[in-house]
Amino acid sequence: MNLKIMKSPKLAVFVFAASFMIACAPIQKEEAETSDPLPSWNEGETKSSIIKFVSEVTDPGSAHFIEVADRIATFDNDGNLWSEQPAYFQLFFAMDRVKLLADQHPEWKTQQPFKAVLEDDLKTLASFGEHGIIELVMATHANITTEEFESVVKQWLVAAKHPRFKRPYTQLVYQPMLELLEYLRSKDFKTFIVSGGGIEFMRPWVEEVYGIPRDQVVGSSIKTEFTYQDGQPVIMRLPELDFIDDKADKPVGIHRFIGRKPVFASGNSDGDLQMLQWTASGEGLRFMLYLHHTDSEREWAYDRESHIGRLDKGLDEASEKGWTVIDMKEDWKLIYPFELE
Amino acid sequence: MNLKIMKSPKLAVFVFAASFMIACAPIQKEEAETSDPLPSWNEGETKSSIIKFVSEVTDPGSAHFIEVADRIATFDNDGNLWSEQPAYFQLFFAMDRVKLLADQHPEWKTQQPFKAVLEDDLKTLASFGEHGIIELVMATHANITTEEFESVVKQWLVAAKHPRFKRPYTQLVYQPMLELLEYLRSKDFKTFIVSGGGIEFMRPWVEEVYGIPRDQVVGSSIKTEFTYQDGQPVIMRLPELDFIDDKADKPVGIHRFIGRKPVFASGNSDGDLQMLQWTASGEGLRFMLYLHHTDSEREWAYDRESHIGRLDKGLDEASEKGWTVIDMKEDWKLIYPFELE
Repeated sequence: MNLKIMKSPKLAVFVFAASFMIACAPIQKEEAETSDPLPSWNEGETKSSIIKFVSEVTDPGSAHFIEVADRIATFDNDGNLWSEQPAYFQLFFAMDRVKLLADQHPEWKTQQPFKAVLEDDLKTLASFGEHGIIELVMATHANITTEEFESVVKQWLVAAKHPRFKRPYTQLVYQPMLELLEYLRSKDFKTFIVSGGGIEFMRPWVEEVYGIPRDQVVGSSIKTEFTYQDGQPVIMRLPELDFIDDKADKPVGIHRFIGRKPVFASGNSDGDLQMLQWTASGEGLRFMLYLHHTDSEREWAYDRESHIGRLDKGLDEASEKGWTVIDMKEDWKLIYPFELE
Repeated sequence: MNLKIMKSPKLAVFVFAASFMIACAPIQKEEAETSDPLPSWNEGETKSSIIKFVSEVTDPGSAHFIEVADRIATFDNDGNLWSEQPAYFQLFFAMDRVKLLADQHPEWKTQQPFKAVLEDDLKTLASFGEHGIIELVMATHANITTEEFESVVKQWLVAAKHPRFKRPYTQLVYQPMLELLEYLRSKDFKTFIVSGGGIEFMRPWVEEVYGIPRDQVVGSSIKTEFTYQDGQPVIMRLPELDFIDDKADKPVGIHRFIGRKPVFASGNSDGDLQMLQWTASGEGLRFMLYLHHTDSEREWAYDRESHIGRLDKGLDEASEKGWTVIDMKEDWKLIYPFELE
């Protein structure tokens, strides 16, 4: 904009002022605050308790004010930011990979859990639990470089479809949780994933899908090694477990990667219980959030008896300690972003 | 500001516009660009090569443009952001801690490296190298909770003084590097520490001193364990090494914590060589920076023969590959922030 060519000084000043109004981020932010930050959440105690917490801890005049640097929010991924039924999505990825590599591994025909994979026996596979699945993933995804692995994940995400919804897995994320992530970030929270899933399985897509940077992902991992291939430095993935980011090791992972106790933690299973306990142990106002899968029609309904994402002890402790529990069926207007189409 | 009470509409619009000029961050940023971003750096090839790189990769019209999400800059700490002579500062911390705990450990009187510590024998201690020092630190800092350890570090930082400069160690950071960190961040780089030092020794102070958040610190660590003390969840530090973030394990640590290859890497010793090689192996324009300690008066002069921060192979490779090498004596107008007083 060249102010010199404007003939009316009044107009020039007006346009000048208007241009700042448009360009100026803080003003836009204030305007946005008057609209609903969680439009896909039904009105009720769950939604209002989230908004009340965020408003209190970000109000400099409140006794519960939390400094920006301390606004750490951690989210489990499977069953919390995206679905985890009829099996962890990373398991479908591993199964497809096993089938792809089966020709090179004739022994897999008789060896579990590979046998169950080759026979599409999800029930047997589920019985191995999250640890078994992570081990399967590790075993089938080592001995390649980190760059090759990233490319394998990206290729799979483009091609693979969820068995029930016939859509790419990254479309089965929860719209209400996307809004919650964005709402927290708009209030200067730093949002992290803290998942039992593989850290390198998540990194290729979480930035685009959740708006969470790659360095804000805590997850399970196998060991890696820096070496040279044809004179070029590479990092090789080794067939050896390094860290399983689940249960009591979620606080360990949080401390190792983030180095600060969260003030907001969100999960959906007993595997998240210690993360919520760790968060609750901080001084001052803290927010512990459980997602309870209660919607057998739009998503799935499961809790205390489920092999996947069991929520049993966590449900009792949430009730005992007054943590907030999302009732998916009652609290969410819609589940997936594609319902907005 | 209430615009209604202003009698002159022209004045009102002017004040309105002016208030946006003051409040509006992007405008202030543009103005700042015209001033020198690295005032403590002498004019010359080193300074101009840094500014040229940053300008090129942040110019959307340049063929070398790098997206904001990829602007990852990694910095070694010891001898690179703060001094490391006459010994790593974390070693002084460990020595003070050994002396404090010596009564409970009579065996230390005859057992190395504790014996050397109790006898203030820096020469023998230095011969153990960085690994030996890390082990000493680990051994003397386990069996307490992470919260207790943080408080121990903070107490030490307040009380301890550097033997030569008689100032707190956190004052012995390099003013030109503080400017470089700030310059990169003003251009939307995310700045990380990638150090052989203990991650939990750095976290309590790097945010305040370097403006680097706690979750952007990669370093060496001991194992930890989530448990309960009097019903309260705590994380205990165990006397077992977990990860030494040095040499070929620097790229491993970068990949584990950051998950993205840096585009800018800065170090001062052979321990940083693989980090610089890893950075250089990325596609597109990359910046590899070595700090050469050449100032025997204002700081220290050492390189190929030094026990601490040896820079030998790195110096050859930098010369061979055209990486930028800071000549501390020639390139820096001043070393420490207190010289500005």
